Amino acid sequence: MRMSRYFLPILKETPADAQIVSHRLMLRSGMIRQASAGIYSWLPLGYRVLQRIERIVHEEQIRVGHNPMLMPTLQSADLWRESGRYDDYGEEMLRITDRHGRDMLYGPTNEELITDIVRSSVQSYRDLPLTLYHVQWKFRDEVRPRFGVMRGREFLMKDGYNFDVDRESAIHAYNRHMVSYLRTYERMGLKAIPMRAETGPIGGDHSHEFLVLAETGESAVFFDSRILDLSLGGRDVDTDSSEDCAAVFEAWTAPYARTDETHDPAKFEAAVPEDRRMNSRAIEVGQIFYFGTKYSEPMDARVVNEDGDRVFVHMGSHGIGVSRLAGAIIEASHDERGIVWPESVAPFHLGIVNLKQGDGDTDSASERIFARAGAAGLDALYDDRNERAGPKFATMDLIGLPWRITVGPRCLRAGMVELTCRRTGETDELEPDAAIERVRLSCHGP
Amino acid sequence: MRMSRYFLPILKETPADAQIVSHRLMLRSGMIRQASAGIYSWLPLGYRVLQRIERIVHEEQIRVGHNPMLMPTLQSADLWRESGRYDDYGEEMLRITDRHGRDMLYGPTNEELITDIVRSSVQSYRDLPLTLYHVQWKFRDEVRPRFGVMRGREFLMKDGYNFDVDRESAIHAYNRHMVSYLRTYERMGLKAIPMRAETGPIGGDHSHEFLVLAETGESAVFFDSRILDLSLGGRDVDTDSSEDCAAVFEAWTAPYARTDETHDPAKFEAAVPEDRRMNSRAIEVGQIFYFGTKYSEPMDARVVNEDGDRVFVHMGSHGIGVSRLAGAIIEASHDERGIVWPESVAPFHLGIVNLKQGDGDTDSASERIFARAGAAGLDALYDDRNERAGPKFATMDLIGLPWRITVGPRCLRAGMVELTCRRTGETDELEPDAAIERVRLSCHGP
Repeated sequence: MRMSRYFLPILKETPADAQIVSHRLMLRSGMIRQASAGIYSWLPLGYRVLQRIERIVHEEQIRVGHNPMLMPTLQSADLWRESGRYDDYGEEMLRITDRHGRDMLYGPTNEELITDIVRSSVQSYRDLPLTLYHVQWKFRDEVRPRFGVMRGREFLMKDGYNFDVDRESAIHAYNRHMVSYLRTYERMGLKAIPMRAETGPIGGDHSHEFLVLAETGESAVFFDSRILDLSLGGRDVDTDSSEDCAAVFEAWTAPYARTDETHDPAKFEAAVPEDRRMNSRAIEVGQIFYFGTKYSEPMDARVVNEDGDRVFVHMGSHGIGVSRLAGAIIEASHDERGIVWPESVAPFHLGIVNLKQGDGDTDSASERIFARAGAAGLDALYDDRNERAGPKFATMDLIGLPWRITVGPRCLRAGMVELTCRRTGETDELEPDAAIERVRLSCHGP
Repeated sequence: MRMSRYFLPILKETPADAQIVSHRLMLRSGMIRQASAGIYSWLPLGYRVLQRIERIVHEEQIRVGHNPMLMPTLQSADLWRESGRYDDYGEEMLRITDRHGRDMLYGPTNEELITDIVRSSVQSYRDLPLTLYHVQWKFRDEVRPRFGVMRGREFLMKDGYNFDVDRESAIHAYNRHMVSYLRTYERMGLKAIPMRAETGPIGGDHSHEFLVLAETGESAVFFDSRILDLSLGGRDVDTDSSEDCAAVFEAWTAPYARTDETHDPAKFEAAVPEDRRMNSRAIEVGQIFYFGTKYSEPMDARVVNEDGDRVFVHMGSHGIGVSRLAGAIIEASHDERGIVWPESVAPFHLGIVNLKQGDGDTDSASERIFARAGAAGLDALYDDRNERAGPKFATMDLIGLPWRITVGPRCLRAGMVELTCRRTGETDELEPDAAIERVRLSCHGP
């Protein structure tokens, strides 16, 4: 993409009402713009990040055999009356009346709708296990939306629902979701810690939240530092195997890790030696639930089991905050100059800065690098504006692209360009093709 | 994808309330399920089609230099009061009140919101021309929703907005949109005819609809049969050139083509020889508008032009009915057995039918074909259920995959499988690798 044709409305001043760093940086870098309270437009740069996060979420869901689909944003109130949640949900639910006077709502979650789909299509244990998920916009009418996309009202969420014939199978689905979530966050460069959680309006007795450490997080967390050493890395977990998934669950839940909601100070002191007792702030980026027959009983969702009995299906639901992750990743990865994107979710892999726009040599070298980067499968943002070096560098630093190639007349006379790593600040002089190859290797691997 | 792990709830009976063929076939093939009046869930098979249509739309927008972004579904009523449309829009607009009593609405279109974004970020003609677009869910509270996704209430639309310094530049944007839309529809296997249109609540004096001929279409259309011969094909149109785009506009709008809304019988008879006068039914799949300063004046969206004057920007808006296209393509391409997907939007390129599930030879041959298809970049749906041949074939025909490979014991003894083309019904016996290669060539080219 050429910057001269891109819509990148950088703000020179820090917006006064943005209290946390991710909100400030997303506004300043032209990623988002507030449309109304707690509701944002994703400008082209932000939309790229959102798409890359969403793609990783999809890939990791599909990898473990979950079925993608898409439910609508608006739902009929009738289904929520069946489950009993229509009255329970409170003012966070946005209630709507259509032109015919029918009660509707903007879905804050989808247990009822998905249960309705499955109960009418699935009659036998042979059609289970089944996990369906979607990535769709939700609405929760927060009384005081703030922190940008971190606590907005309209937000993008992945929510998935497992249907199983019994508790044992549903617990495997729960553990499988934990594995896939851990891998999802790792791919985004995040260290997300599963912590035992309250279940709130979703219900059930078995739930974990995933928390990313950040000074500005809304939750206080208490944990054994050993959990920071855990990583799936390239480990090959057979997610069809309940033993393999249970082993990951055991390993990640053995060390003490709780939010203030479930924290037990006596237990913490008894279980964790003092030098490993950590407390911090953290951001919730996902949650998984097992709630058994909480919805299948009132909604009469049953299957015939192997013995010929019609039994209520066992269910769980599992959510990842897709739009919130854009903010959470920035909270976890920025410096005083701006965002520092992990390569996996960066809006562009690479920025190209032409130090002397209009000069025949730097122009043609920059154009060539831009074309070669595209041919190497890299998304490059080429700053082809007639602008001084200082503002060009400041923009690249602010928007946080992992790599920058600087094309200047002096260096170019020796056939070289500068390659700068955003995270480390290290700069090397290289031939243009070698610079592209190094970026390609770093972003796509050998 | 293995059918045994896929959620594909085929209906045995034709739903009584579905009046048109696309609605019936989408329900029967397990593509969609009604959530409430005019609101649908897209089940896994339907979601795949929706994604493929959306991807083609994105690719053709990006190819001509338009900037993808994403605006929210809910908007504040305040912006619509600025433009004067809040009171004008009528009962089709879904009006919502949030917990603080603020007036909001579910966006039926986005002229106001995008104008607000641009007026606050763009000050100079140097930042123009600019076209921003998004693919997002919309809501229009139709008094009588029907025809499935063809006239639903919640629907997915691509809507784009061009901002130009003067009328001439905006007319180029209009023509460029026509080129990109023609190419978009051609890639989906559709013959879409641009027809002069009324502008309705969007406004302006310059608009074309794109119509696909289908017996069940909601519009009566009258046209010169010569227009059916026009095709962009592989033509290389330079969409940065106003001459090139204008030439396409001229060629496609020279032959008479009107809907009943703009039809002029006297002109039709005068302009078109009797043997070329066609009338038919058709489905609207898109519309483009130029409306000048209709929104920029009341909303005070201005830029400084080359002469230093602050002038109102010239705008147009341009829509493609993404979810509606799934229905329109089926209306244009089906037979008595089911859907006949064009390869470009098919949910899977290929179905694999194992005629004797459980037999060592057919199982291992089918598995190998499934793996090889994946390695060749083909999406295959492998029917690995323990089911008779008849129902397996009927399912493949109903869901309309372009190609089917049948693996049976008799053929396999000679080292062969059957390759069947859904559109023509032709079947050939081939070695497995040759069958995959033929499908790959047909779907992806050499």
